[in-house]
Amino acid sequence: MQETDKPPCLFSYEPIGTIHSPWTDIEGMPIQPAGARGVRGTVEVSGKFQEGLNGIEGFSRIILIYSFHKCTGSALTVKPFLDPTPRGVFATRAPRRPNAIGLSIVRLVERDGRTLVIEDVDILDGTPVLDIKPYVPLFDSHPEAAAGWFDRVAQNAENCRSDGRFR
Amino acid sequence: MQETDKPPCLFSYEPIGTIHSPWTDIEGMPIQPAGARGVRGTVEVSGKFQEGLNGIEGFSRIILIYSFHKCTGSALTVKPFLDPTPRGVFATRAPRRPNAIGLSIVRLVERDGRTLVIEDVDILDGTPVLDIKPYVPLFDSHPEAAAGWFDRVAQNAENCRSDGRFR
Repeated sequence: MQETDKPPCLFSYEPIGTIHSPWTDIEGMPIQPAGARGVRGTVEVSGKFQEGLNGIEGFSRIILIYSFHKCTGSALTVKPFLDPTPRGVFATRAPRRPNAIGLSIVRLVERDGRTLVIEDVDILDGTPVLDIKPYVPLFDSHPEAAAGWFDRVAQNAENCRSDGRFR
Repeated sequence: MQETDKPPCLFSYEPIGTIHSPWTDIEGMPIQPAGARGVRGTVEVSGKFQEGLNGIEGFSRIILIYSFHKCTGSALTVKPFLDPTPRGVFATRAPRRPNAIGLSIVRLVERDGRTLVIEDVDILDGTPVLDIKPYVPLFDSHPEAAAGWFDRVAQNAENCRSDGRFR
Protein backbone atom coordinates (compact mmCIF):
# COMPACT_ATOMS: atom_id res chain seq x y z
CA MET A 1 0.00 0.00 0.00
CA GLN A 2 1.29 3.44 -0.87
CA GLU A 3 2.34 5.57 2.09
CA THR A 4 0.54 8.82 1.38
CA ASP A 5 1.02 10.47 4.76
CA LYS A 6 2.72 13.83 4.88
CA PRO A 7 6.07 14.27 6.60
CA PRO A 8 5.84 14.33 10.42
CA CYS A 9 4.82 17.57 12.05
CA LEU A 10 4.17 18.29 15.70
CA PHE A 11 1.17 19.77 17.46
CA SER A 12 2.04 21.38 20.77
CA TYR A 13 -0.37 22.10 23.60
CA GLU A 14 0.00 24.06 26.80
CA PRO A 15 -1.99 22.60 29.71
CA ILE A 16 -5.07 24.61 30.69
CA GLY A 17 -4.94 23.36 34.28
CA THR A 18 -4.13 20.51 36.64
CA ILE A 19 -6.12 17.58 38.00
CA HIS A 20 -5.89 16.84 41.71
CA SER A 21 -6.91 13.45 43.04
CA PRO A 22 -6.19 11.03 45.88
CA TRP A 23 -4.09 8.95 43.46
CA THR A 24 -0.52 9.99 44.11
CA ASP A 25 1.02 6.74 42.87
CA ILE A 26 0.26 4.91 39.63
CA GLU A 27 0.37 1.60 41.45
CA GLY A 28 -2.99 0.74 43.00
CA MET A 29 -4.98 3.24 40.96
CA PRO A 30 -8.29 2.29 39.38
CA ILE A 31 -7.89 1.87 35.65
CA GLN A 32 -11.17 3.50 34.60
CA PRO A 33 -13.78 5.84 36.15
CA ALA A 34 -15.98 2.73 36.50
CA GLY A 35 -13.54 1.58 39.18
CA ALA A 36 -13.38 4.96 40.90
CA ARG A 37 -17.03 5.57 41.67
CA GLY A 38 -17.42 8.26 44.30
CA VAL A 39 -13.72 9.18 44.31
CA ARG A 40 -13.50 12.97 44.35
CA GLY A 41 -10.93 15.24 42.84
CA THR A 42 -10.68 18.67 41.32
CA VAL A 43 -9.65 20.31 38.10
CA GLU A 44 -7.84 23.57 38.83
CA VAL A 45 -8.08 25.58 35.64
CA SER A 46 -5.45 28.29 35.17
CA GLY A 47 -6.79 31.75 35.91
CA LYS A 48 -6.30 32.93 32.37
CA PHE A 49 -8.70 30.25 31.09
CA GLN A 50 -11.36 30.58 33.81
CA GLU A 51 -13.78 32.48 31.58
CA GLY A 52 -13.96 29.40 29.34
CA LEU A 53 -15.79 27.49 32.10
CA ASN A 54 -18.90 29.68 32.02
CA GLY A 55 -21.96 27.55 31.42
CA ILE A 56 -20.31 24.25 32.31
CA GLU A 57 -22.35 24.09 35.53
CA GLY A 58 -25.37 22.60 33.76
CA PHE A 59 -23.53 19.47 32.67
CA SER A 60 -23.44 16.44 34.95
CA ARG A 61 -20.49 14.86 33.14
CA ILE A 62 -17.47 16.28 31.39
CA ILE A 63 -14.81 14.84 29.14
CA LEU A 64 -11.28 15.44 30.34
CA ILE A 65 -8.45 15.19 27.81
CA TYR A 66 -5.09 15.12 29.50
CA SER A 67 -1.48 14.08 29.26
CA PHE A 68 -0.35 10.76 30.73
CA HIS A 69 2.61 12.77 31.93
CA LYS A 70 4.21 9.99 33.97
CA CYS A 71 4.33 7.56 31.08
CA THR A 72 7.62 7.19 29.35
CA GLY A 73 8.11 5.50 26.03
CA SER A 74 5.38 3.84 24.03
CA ALA A 75 4.51 0.43 22.70
CA LEU A 76 2.39 -0.68 19.76
CA THR A 77 1.43 -3.98 21.36
CA VAL A 78 0.46 -4.07 25.01
CA LYS A 79 -0.96 -6.48 27.56
CA PRO A 80 -3.97 -4.61 28.95
CA PHE A 81 -4.78 -4.84 32.63
CA LEU A 82 -8.03 -6.66 31.99
CA ASP A 83 -6.81 -9.44 29.74
CA PRO A 84 -3.46 -11.19 29.30
CA THR A 85 -3.72 -11.35 25.50
CA PRO A 86 -1.43 -8.86 23.71
CA ARG A 87 -3.40 -6.25 21.74
CA GLY A 88 -2.63 -3.37 19.47
CA VAL A 89 -2.43 -0.28 21.66
CA PHE A 90 -5.20 1.49 19.69
CA ALA A 91 -7.54 -1.37 20.63
CA THR A 92 -6.83 -0.63 24.31
CA ARG A 93 -7.04 2.29 26.71
CA ALA A 94 -3.50 1.67 27.98
CA PRO A 95 -1.62 4.89 28.79
CA ARG A 96 1.67 4.09 27.11
CA ARG A 97 0.63 5.07 23.58
CA PRO A 98 2.42 6.78 20.68
CA ASN A 99 0.78 10.00 21.86
CA ALA A 100 0.23 9.60 25.61
CA ILE A 101 -3.14 11.36 25.63
CA GLY A 102 -5.71 10.29 28.21
CA LEU A 103 -9.48 10.62 28.14
CA SER A 104 -11.81 10.22 31.11
CA ILE A 105 -15.50 10.94 31.41
CA VAL A 106 -16.08 12.08 34.99
CA ARG A 107 -19.00 13.45 36.98
CA LEU A 108 -19.09 17.20 37.45
CA VAL A 109 -20.25 17.89 41.02
CA GLU A 110 -19.84 21.64 41.10
CA ARG A 111 -17.92 24.58 39.77
CA ASP A 112 -16.42 27.18 42.10
CA GLY A 113 -14.63 29.87 40.11
CA ARG A 114 -11.81 28.17 38.30
CA THR A 115 -12.17 24.92 40.28
CA LEU A 116 -14.26 22.00 39.10
CA VAL A 117 -15.14 19.41 41.73
CA ILE A 118 -15.29 16.06 39.96
CA GLU A 119 -16.20 12.50 40.90
CA ASP A 120 -15.31 9.02 39.58
CA VAL A 121 -11.72 10.16 39.20
CA ASP A 122 -9.27 7.57 37.84
CA ILE A 123 -6.57 10.13 37.10
CA LEU A 124 -3.17 10.60 38.74
CA ASP A 125 -2.74 13.62 41.02
CA GLY A 126 -0.92 16.44 39.24
CA THR A 127 -2.02 15.44 35.75
CA PRO A 128 -1.94 18.30 33.22
CA VAL A 129 -5.30 18.89 31.50
CA LEU A 130 -5.27 19.74 27.81
CA ASP A 131 -8.99 20.22 27.18
CA ILE A 132 -12.40 20.02 28.85
CA LYS A 133 -15.50 19.25 26.80
CA PRO A 134 -19.10 18.90 27.92
CA TYR A 135 -20.48 15.35 27.73
CA VAL A 136 -23.56 15.31 25.49
CA PRO A 137 -25.43 11.98 25.44
CA LEU A 138 -26.77 12.55 21.91
CA PHE A 139 -23.20 12.74 20.63
CA ASP A 140 -21.33 10.56 23.08
CA SER A 141 -23.63 7.84 24.45
CA HIS A 142 -23.79 4.64 22.42
CA PRO A 143 -24.91 1.90 24.81
CA GLU A 144 -25.31 -0.60 21.98
CA ALA A 145 -21.73 -0.35 20.69
CA ALA A 146 -19.83 -3.62 20.39
CA ALA A 147 -16.66 -3.47 22.42
CA GLY A 148 -14.52 -6.29 21.03
CA TRP A 149 -12.44 -8.07 23.65
CA PHE A 150 -13.64 -5.59 26.29
CA ASP A 151 -17.14 -7.08 26.12
CA ARG A 152 -15.90 -10.19 27.89
CA VAL A 153 -13.93 -8.42 30.60
CA ALA A 154 -15.11 -4.82 30.96
CA GLN A 155 -17.06 -5.54 34.15
CA ASN A 156 -13.76 -6.49 35.79
CA ALA A 157 -12.61 -2.89 35.34
CA GLU A 158 -14.46 -1.96 38.49
CA ASN A 159 -12.13 -4.00 40.67
CA CYS A 160 -8.95 -4.01 38.61
CA ARG A 161 -6.11 -1.83 39.85
CA SER A 162 -3.05 -0.50 38.11
CA ASP A 163 0.42 -1.89 38.61
CA GLY A 164 3.73 -0.46 37.45
CA ARG A 165 3.62 -1.77 33.90
CA PHE A 166 2.88 1.56 32.23
CA ARG A 167 5.08 3.72 34.41
CA MET B 1 -7.66 32.49 44.88
CA GLN B 2 -4.05 31.44 44.88
CA GLU B 3 -2.64 30.51 41.51
CA THR B 4 -0.97 27.19 42.24
CA ASP B 5 -0.40 26.07 38.68
CA LYS B 6 3.10 25.29 37.59
CA PRO B 7 4.82 27.37 34.93
CA PRO B 8 3.61 26.62 31.40
CA CYS B 9 5.10 23.62 29.66
CA LEU B 10 4.22 22.14 26.30
CA PHE B 11 3.20 18.65 25.30
CA SER B 12 3.96 17.86 21.68
CA TYR B 13 2.37 15.14 19.60
CA GLU B 14 3.18 13.75 16.19
CA PRO B 15 0.08 12.69 14.23
CA ILE B 16 -0.35 8.93 13.89
CA GLY B 17 -2.30 9.28 10.66
CA THR B 18 -4.74 11.29 8.60
CA ILE B 19 -8.53 11.34 8.30
CA HIS B 20 -10.04 11.43 4.84
CA SER B 21 -13.64 12.52 4.37
CA PRO B 22 -15.95 14.13 1.81
CA TRP B 23 -15.71 17.39 3.81
CA THR B 24 -13.11 19.46 1.99
CA ASP B 25 -14.43 22.82 3.21
CA ILE B 26 -15.33 23.81 6.76
CA GLU B 27 -18.38 25.66 5.51
CA GLY B 28 -21.37 23.36 5.14
CA MET B 29 -19.92 20.55 7.27
CA PRO B 30 -22.03 18.78 9.87
CA ILE B 31 -21.07 19.88 13.34
CA GLN B 32 -21.31 16.49 15.01
CA PRO B 33 -21.39 12.81 13.99
CA ALA B 34 -25.15 12.95 14.74
CA GLY B 35 -25.46 15.16 11.66
CA ALA B 36 -23.24 12.96 9.51
CA ARG B 37 -25.01 9.62 9.75
CA GLY B 38 -23.91 7.31 6.97
CA VAL B 39 -21.13 9.62 5.78
CA ARG B 40 -18.06 7.48 5.12
CA GLY B 41 -14.43 8.32 5.46
CA THR B 42 -11.18 6.64 6.32
CA VAL B 43 -8.40 6.91 8.84
CA GLU B 44 -5.07 6.24 7.16
CA VAL B 45 -2.71 5.28 9.94
CA SER B 46 1.00 5.73 9.23
CA GLY B 47 2.73 2.48 8.41
CA LYS B 48 4.97 2.64 11.46
CA PHE B 49 1.91 2.60 13.76
CA GLN B 50 -0.11 -0.07 11.90
CA GLU B 51 0.68 -2.79 14.46
CA GLY B 52 -1.18 -0.72 17.06
CA LEU B 53 -4.47 -1.39 15.26
CA ASN B 54 -4.47 -5.13 15.93
CA GLY B 55 -7.67 -6.12 17.68
CA ILE B 56 -9.57 -2.95 16.82
CA GLU B 57 -11.76 -4.92 14.40
CA GLY B 58 -14.10 -6.10 17.15
CA PHE B 59 -15.19 -2.61 18.12
CA SER B 60 -18.17 -1.02 16.38
CA ARG B 61 -17.23 2.50 17.46
CA ILE B 62 -13.94 4.23 18.04
CA ILE B 63 -12.94 7.52 19.60
CA LEU B 64 -10.84 9.74 17.35
CA ILE B 65 -8.74 12.45 18.95
CA TYR B 66 -7.42 14.88 16.39
CA SER B 67 -6.14 18.36 15.74
CA PHE B 68 -8.54 21.04 14.50
CA HIS B 69 -5.66 21.94 12.21
CA LYS B 70 -7.53 24.60 10.21
CA CYS B 71 -8.51 26.59 13.27
CA THR B 72 -6.46 29.63 14.01
CA GLY B 73 -6.54 31.52 17.27
CA SER B 74 -8.79 30.70 20.17
CA ALA B 75 -11.55 32.30 22.18
CA LEU B 76 -12.73 31.74 25.75
CA THR B 77 -16.30 32.79 24.99
CA VAL B 78 -17.96 31.56 21.82
CA LYS B 79 -21.37 31.56 20.18
CA PRO B 80 -22.00 27.88 19.48
CA PHE B 81 -23.70 26.84 16.24
CA LEU B 82 -26.73 25.51 18.05
CA ASP B 83 -27.58 28.50 20.23
CA PRO B 84 -26.93 32.23 19.94
CA THR B 85 -26.10 32.68 23.64
CA PRO B 86 -22.38 33.20 24.31
CA ARG B 87 -20.87 30.36 26.37
CA GLY B 88 -17.53 29.52 27.86
CA VAL B 89 -15.66 27.48 25.29
CA PHE B 90 -15.24 24.52 27.70
CA ALA B 91 -19.05 24.32 27.89
CA THR B 92 -19.14 23.87 24.10
CA ARG B 93 -17.67 21.59 21.45
CA ALA B 94 -16.55 24.54 19.32
CA PRO B 95 -13.24 23.91 17.55
CA ARG B 96 -11.55 27.21 18.31
CA ARG B 97 -10.34 26.31 21.80
CA PRO B 98 -7.17 27.09 23.79
CA ASN B 99 -5.93 23.67 22.66
CA ALA B 100 -7.62 22.95 19.34
CA ILE B 101 -8.14 19.24 20.04
CA GLY B 102 -11.15 17.53 18.50
CA LEU B 103 -12.96 14.39 19.60
CA SER B 104 -15.43 12.39 17.53
CA ILE B 105 -17.00 9.03 18.21
CA VAL B 106 -17.48 7.36 14.84
CA ARG B 107 -18.61 3.97 13.60
CA LEU B 108 -15.88 1.53 12.63
CA VAL B 109 -17.02 -0.29 9.50
CA GLU B 110 -13.90 -2.29 8.76
CA ARG B 111 -10.15 -2.40 9.04
CA ASP B 112 -7.97 -3.14 6.04
CA GLY B 113 -4.29 -3.11 7.01
CA ARG B 114 -3.53 0.40 8.13
CA THR B 115 -6.83 1.81 6.84
CA LEU B 116 -9.93 2.14 8.99
CA VAL B 117 -13.20 2.65 7.14
CA ILE B 118 -15.38 4.83 9.35
CA GLU B 119 -18.94 6.16 9.22
CA ASP B 120 -20.75 9.17 10.72
CA VAL B 121 -17.77 11.33 9.87
CA ASP B 122 -18.02 15.00 10.84
CA ILE B 123 -14.31 15.66 10.36
CA LEU B 124 -12.54 17.78 7.76
CA ASP B 125 -10.61 15.96 5.03
CA GLY B 126 -6.88 15.90 5.78
CA THR B 127 -7.27 16.16 9.55
CA PRO B 128 -4.26 14.84 11.50
CA VAL B 129 -5.17 12.12 14.02
CA LEU B 130 -3.42 12.15 17.38
CA ASP B 131 -4.93 9.05 18.97
CA ILE B 132 -7.47 6.29 18.42
CA LYS B 133 -9.20 4.64 21.37
CA PRO B 134 -11.80 1.88 21.41
CA TYR B 135 -15.27 3.00 22.50
CA VAL B 136 -16.37 0.95 25.52
CA PRO B 137 -20.00 1.51 26.58
CA LEU B 138 -19.27 0.65 30.23
CA PHE B 139 -16.76 3.49 30.38
CA ASP B 140 -18.14 5.92 27.83
CA SER B 141 -21.92 5.59 27.59
CA HIS B 142 -23.91 7.73 30.02
CA PRO B 143 -27.36 8.18 28.49
CA GLU B 144 -28.71 9.81 31.64
CA ALA B 145 -26.16 12.63 31.80
CA ALA B 146 -27.56 16.15 32.01
CA ALA B 147 -26.26 18.23 29.14
CA GLY B 148 -26.89 21.82 30.26
CA TRP B 149 -27.86 24.14 27.44
CA PHE B 150 -27.38 21.32 24.93
CA ASP B 151 -30.42 19.53 26.31
CA ARG B 152 -32.66 22.15 24.73
CA VAL B 153 -30.97 22.21 21.34
CA ALA B 154 -28.93 19.02 20.83
CA GLN B 155 -31.51 17.49 18.48
CA ASN B 156 -30.87 20.39 16.11
CA ALA B 157 -27.31 19.17 15.69
CA GLU B 158 -28.54 16.69 13.10
CA ASN B 159 -29.44 19.44 10.67
CA CYS B 160 -27.09 22.21 11.70
CA ARG B 161 -24.16 22.94 9.38
CA SER B 162 -20.93 24.76 9.97
CA ASP B 163 -20.22 28.24 8.69
CA GLY B 164 -16.94 30.13 8.62
CA ARG B 165 -16.99 31.33 12.20
CA PHE B 166 -14.33 28.97 13.52
CA ARG B 167 -12.06 29.05 10.50
